[in-house]
Amino acid sequence: MNCSCCLSLAALRTPSSPWDTRFPLFGMTNAWAQDPLPSWNDGPAKRVILDFVKDTTEKSSPKYVEPADRIATFDQDGTLWTEQPLYTQAMFALERLGKMALQHPEWKQQEPFKSVLTRDNAAMSKFTESNWMQIVAATHAGMSTEAFHGLVKDWLTTAKAPRFDRPYTDLIFQPMLEVMRYLRASGFRTYIVTGGGQEFVRVYSEQGYGVPPEQVVGSSIATKYDNTSGKPVLMREPKVFFIDDGPGKAIGINLFIGKRPYAAFGNSAGDAQMLEWTQAGAGARLMMLVLHDDAKREYAYGPATGLPDTHVGTFTESLLSEATKNAWVVISMKNDWKRIFPFEQ
Amino acid sequence: MNCSCCLSLAALRTPSSPWDTRFPLFGMTNAWAQDPLPSWNDGPAKRVILDFVKDTTEKSSPKYVEPADRIATFDQDGTLWTEQPLYTQAMFALERLGKMALQHPEWKQQEPFKSVLTRDNAAMSKFTESNWMQIVAATHAGMSTEAFHGLVKDWLTTAKAPRFDRPYTDLIFQPMLEVMRYLRASGFRTYIVTGGGQEFVRVYSEQGYGVPPEQVVGSSIATKYDNTSGKPVLMREPKVFFIDDGPGKAIGINLFIGKRPYAAFGNSAGDAQMLEWTQAGAGARLMMLVLHDDAKREYAYGPATGLPDTHVGTFTESLLSEATKNAWVVISMKNDWKRIFPFEQ
Repeated sequence: MNCSCCLSLAALRTPSSPWDTRFPLFGMTNAWAQDPLPSWNDGPAKRVILDFVKDTTEKSSPKYVEPADRIATFDQDGTLWTEQPLYTQAMFALERLGKMALQHPEWKQQEPFKSVLTRDNAAMSKFTESNWMQIVAATHAGMSTEAFHGLVKDWLTTAKAPRFDRPYTDLIFQPMLEVMRYLRASGFRTYIVTGGGQEFVRVYSEQGYGVPPEQVVGSSIATKYDNTSGKPVLMREPKVFFIDDGPGKAIGINLFIGKRPYAAFGNSAGDAQMLEWTQAGAGARLMMLVLHDDAKREYAYGPATGLPDTHVGTFTESLLSEATKNAWVVISMKNDWKRIFPFEQ
Repeated sequence: MNCSCCLSLAALRTPSSPWDTRFPLFGMTNAWAQDPLPSWNDGPAKRVILDFVKDTTEKSSPKYVEPADRIATFDQDGTLWTEQPLYTQAMFALERLGKMALQHPEWKQQEPFKSVLTRDNAAMSKFTESNWMQIVAATHAGMSTEAFHGLVKDWLTTAKAPRFDRPYTDLIFQPMLEVMRYLRASGFRTYIVTGGGQEFVRVYSEQGYGVPPEQVVGSSIATKYDNTSGKPVLMREPKVFFIDDGPGKAIGINLFIGKRPYAAFGNSAGDAQMLEWTQAGAGARLMMLVLHDDAKREYAYGPATGLPDTHVGTFTESLLSEATKNAWVVISMKNDWKRIFPFEQ
């Protein structure tokens, strides 16, 4: 047996995963040692991250945190990758619905399917939670977890994100990958805490972010154990089990991790409680929000600070007030990020 | 920063935790290297554990498993510690109910409370799930998660287990601690997957077993996020959220871990699906069941193999048939364990 203390970090390395080739883990260069966040412009946002890591990891610091307690949580849509013009998982659901419609001629007359099939964006922007649940039930349930993973995997290899005409996983933010990597190299465990589907995100979280399945906390539908065919399967049911959004993010963090994060990153109103929950702990705590104010390189939306209201991943005025009041740090994509996507040179 | 690859293992060491002093982690002796399971008698049960670790961790083995995938799951009650005459958490609930009864004179006439207060064991053995839920609602809900942790912690320091007249955490099985430690030293992560309450077990899992809170999967009641008093809390509600028992163990493993275990340990009918789920994966898989056949040193109950039926943690005839059919290994407490408790000399 090799040195067992290296096993768990080695475990995080999957050969050929994008984050691994972007960051050769055991080949840290001097440049990296000097600047672990090269895609960040110098400024208060970058500074606060560097200070936080110093405060929590230097043994002599009064705010030192034991490695076992070093937990950092990241919202996904809009925080780790692009969420416009619609969440990636919604795109998956809508495209799958389009394909399934061939076997469901009745959907042409039946809401919410009709609006989806006719691409009635105005109607879709007004969908209720129950409408979305009908779409999720049709596209995400009635199959085993393994079959669902296969569907998502296949879709990700062929689907292209609008505007960029690239695979969705190309739209992961390089500066956030650097933060995740820097935190992990500093002994933190990085968790994704997403309103999106836990099983959906698990399909690409390791390759995309270096986050293993057990560190993905997300929304889920119920599953049912079925061992009637000789090989047990978990069948996905058309029934909400857990919504990991808003207050659900604090609940999910406690349920799945059982430890309070020291750092939390979000970008929209649904992340407020995760940041509140993080801040309520003692010692050094880092709360950050990504503001999409870069229409040229990505998207610009708020409605905070007068940016357009896209109704997807909204950064509300009240979230901005709460951030200001609590000294949460707002990351300006336009000013704080030198480079947004890994594919940019 | 120190070598970051050592941080995660270092994280598992909490100074003064019992398992740590029982096993000085970095002071592995020659004796340990020669026999990592000293409390096990030589025999097929011990052999199968040693072979499994060899098969899954030696690089040259055709059954080699990547460290990231080395997951082992352990039922708690009856597998890791004594569950007779009643589950420890039930003892907590009943003792707490006794104290609370002073403020609830009406309980003297009201079931299920009446049976508990009069220690009517016959009636209690027939309690339905709904009866138990009423008791859980009265004793486990209506407080914050932090307050609940405090109650459990306090109780554990004073409560004594019947027959042994010792703290409940003294009744953890030494041979199983050795298996957990051996697996961890071999790059496995050890998870507790219990029908008991997740928050209850998290209070002592690190000290008792070296298992951190994020590796405890258990049953839970719903919580509600409340930020009205300025400091957010999660309030425990009198409502079942998840039952991690029977098929729920396979569901819980997928939900919380998202990886299939390579090894699973149980002792009763509620563990069957966890073992089925484990075995359904490819490669080397280890499925083991503890049979309590040692009335002298601990307890003897089945009803399998003609042992008494205690109605708590039952090892049924049908479980034994399934074990035989699937080549799951039954651990005879009497024959396979040289020493049962850490306090034995």
